[in-house]
Amino acid sequence: MMQVFDDVYFMRKALEEAQLAFEKGEVPVGAVVVSNQQIIARAHNSTEQLNDVTAHAEMLAITSAANYLGGKYLKKCKLYVSLEPCQMCAGALYWSQIDEVIYGASDPKRGFRKMGTQMHPKIKIKYGIMAKEAQDLLQAFFNNKRK
Amino acid sequence: MMQVFDDVYFMRKALEEAQLAFEKGEVPVGAVVVSNQQIIARAHNSTEQLNDVTAHAEMLAITSAANYLGGKYLKKCKLYVSLEPCQMCAGALYWSQIDEVIYGASDPKRGFRKMGTQMHPKIKIKYGIMAKEAQDLLQAFFNNKRK
Repeated sequence: MMQVFDDVYFMRKALEEAQLAFEKGEVPVGAVVVSNQQIIARAHNSTEQLNDVTAHAEMLAITSAANYLGGKYLKKCKLYVSLEPCQMCAGALYWSQIDEVIYGASDPKRGFRKMGTQMHPKIKIKYGIMAKEAQDLLQAFFNNKRK
Repeated sequence: MMQVFDDVYFMRKALEEAQLAFEKGEVPVGAVVVSNQQIIARAHNSTEQLNDVTAHAEMLAITSAANYLGGKYLKKCKLYVSLEPCQMCAGALYWSQIDEVIYGASDPKRGFRKMGTQMHPKIKIKYGIMAKEAQDLLQAFFNNKRK
């Protein structure tokens, strides 16, 4: 059977990263960067492991993708992330010159939309791809924490 | 003569970092993090050297300070930075639980105030400390670039 490299395919890969974060006790958010239909960077939230509030999935994925490309700009790349980026990550994406950002679940509390962060006008935004899966994983994480 | 550890003293240290960035051909912005009147982290903008749009002075200083403290939150710390933080850096400071942010020059184009980024309401903000020195250094950098 042919594999279709569509938004659902790549979001599933971002969710696999979120699952890795979950298993490590990190808030489960994952991201991948795609260039020419290929994944060039994968990362998951690692703020606990790295003791660093800046170690969100998107930030690590941006740094890793730039490293792969050998240049700091992510032109013609897409970032898939399971949760809506925060102000910091949206601000980083603004600088990155990335082509497109696709996120799964919305974050009505700390997401960049609610916070009013300006995404670069050239960046295309899509959302809601596998949002339920991303949200369920976050919910399971916070339910476990409360126990 | 007694050394006074005041805002001007620490901003001068942030400007020394900005000068290091200048000498490396980086947009000259520098930052220090202060805890108990002691500098626990210093950094300058390194986006060119690291090939990474996320490598702003503030981001590197936050990561470095957390590493020094052994915990991700910068409670009771102050960050001095020569230029007004951008959306990304203000977003990172939001998460950091830092006590105070002191910046020098304003950035009327890409600064967090202009962009509407929400700083955490508990974070005290001061600005304008040695603003002219910070601005002159940036101006010299961009004048050189245009030549």
